[in-house]
Amino acid sequence: MTDILADEIIDDLQLDGLKIIQKANGFKFGSDAVLISDFAKDNKSNKTLDLCTGTGIIPLLLSKKTSTKKICGIEIQHDICDMAKRSVLLNNLTEQISITEGNLLDAVSIYGKCSFDTITCNPPYMEQGSGLINKADTKLISRHEIYCTLDDVIRVSQQLLIPMGRFIMVHRPSRLADIITIMRKYKLEPKRIRFVQPSVNKAPNLLLIEGIKGAGKELLFMPNLIMYNDDLTPTDEINKIYNRS
Amino acid sequence: MTDILADEIIDDLQLDGLKIIQKANGFKFGSDAVLISDFAKDNKSNKTLDLCTGTGIIPLLLSKKTSTKKICGIEIQHDICDMAKRSVLLNNLTEQISITEGNLLDAVSIYGKCSFDTITCNPPYMEQGSGLINKADTKLISRHEIYCTLDDVIRVSQQLLIPMGRFIMVHRPSRLADIITIMRKYKLEPKRIRFVQPSVNKAPNLLLIEGIKGAGKELLFMPNLIMYNDDLTPTDEINKIYNRS
Repeated sequence: MTDILADEIIDDLQLDGLKIIQKANGFKFGSDAVLISDFAKDNKSNKTLDLCTGTGIIPLLLSKKTSTKKICGIEIQHDICDMAKRSVLLNNLTEQISITEGNLLDAVSIYGKCSFDTITCNPPYMEQGSGLINKADTKLISRHEIYCTLDDVIRVSQQLLIPMGRFIMVHRPSRLADIITIMRKYKLEPKRIRFVQPSVNKAPNLLLIEGIKGAGKELLFMPNLIMYNDDLTPTDEINKIYNRS
Repeated sequence: MTDILADEIIDDLQLDGLKIIQKANGFKFGSDAVLISDFAKDNKSNKTLDLCTGTGIIPLLLSKKTSTKKICGIEIQHDICDMAKRSVLLNNLTEQISITEGNLLDAVSIYGKCSFDTITCNPPYMEQGSGLINKADTKLISRHEIYCTLDDVIRVSQQLLIPMGRFIMVHRPSRLADIITIMRKYKLEPKRIRFVQPSVNKAPNLLLIEGIKGAGKELLFMPNLIMYNDDLTPTDEINKIYNRS
């Protein structure tokens, strides 16, 4: 049995018995992680790396939603990374998932150039300098670009990917211009995009994007993903993504 | 009375008696022109230029939908430009609207640098080199980047706009990465975006975007505009945009 600490809980992910260890009162995975795992699920991958993996939610979901042989995750925060490692043990997934404690800026020296065909990332959304932050707060580290900027995430991904490898990210629509200009700068051509909106009449509040290293131009738009019906019940597609019947 | 040629017709724009001269069997204005005029309508402008104005549909609509004092339009194709000029006469709008026959690449020498607070454009959507084209075909000239590229449109707009002036364009979502990288290149910061989709479950097929010359970052997403209900009737918002009760 895997140990959990006094301030931790084990949540059931409602997917083939998958479980995850999280802090009872800390940063918990959100719909972003579930939606990017769904957005990435049709991708055929032999070796995927999840940057800023946090408690390992994306590698855990990808292990069940895809046939990816090897999924790595890297996380800079010691306590969070330790939870991710114990969640992998708890689910008996140590052969398929490997979690590393480390800085994204060192990922190329840790894994080597061109060593993944797919990279996923649910990075901090808030740009550096936007608001006062406390470096000791794990919630804030997960939300603000303290340890890595968007430019870092994309530059490092470009180095880690094989030619024609896929970069898959979830982010905020308000950062779209930054995302596209930086992806183009590092030759990760935006190829597929899906906006997520809370309901039919609301503006998009999340962005799912896939770029391919060195690919030609042509951006495919998927129909927007709508989270809730007018009566505030989840839409059929959201129930399907969350494996609710 | 304004003369029309044998192959021309006069269409009623259903807006304060506004009429437009079009070719009976040529390129006619589409929903793109109506939607960009709606997207631009809350903008306070003293002097607007419509690039690639065609038959002058955008200046005509803006003359009724906004309080803009002076609206210029420039069009390279002689016959089309002549129709635009005659439509302005037909509507007695010669004081408010001025149409010029000319090449967009000469627009800065025609009008002078920093001479507009707003530029609108419904440019050709198809990139140069995408498919065989016949230079004599006015429909194709309106759809393909024969006389000007997207880079030309945005570079020239940047030169024609005053600081903090607005650039408003309708285009295809598939060109989004080009649009954003070129706007950033010429310091027309993307500030507001609206996607248009045929129906609730379809992917967006048109993009409305506003950039401000020299503005700071932060991109506002409006709720997507949906054209048709599930029963194929136009949505309430579309009826409102088309002034149907």
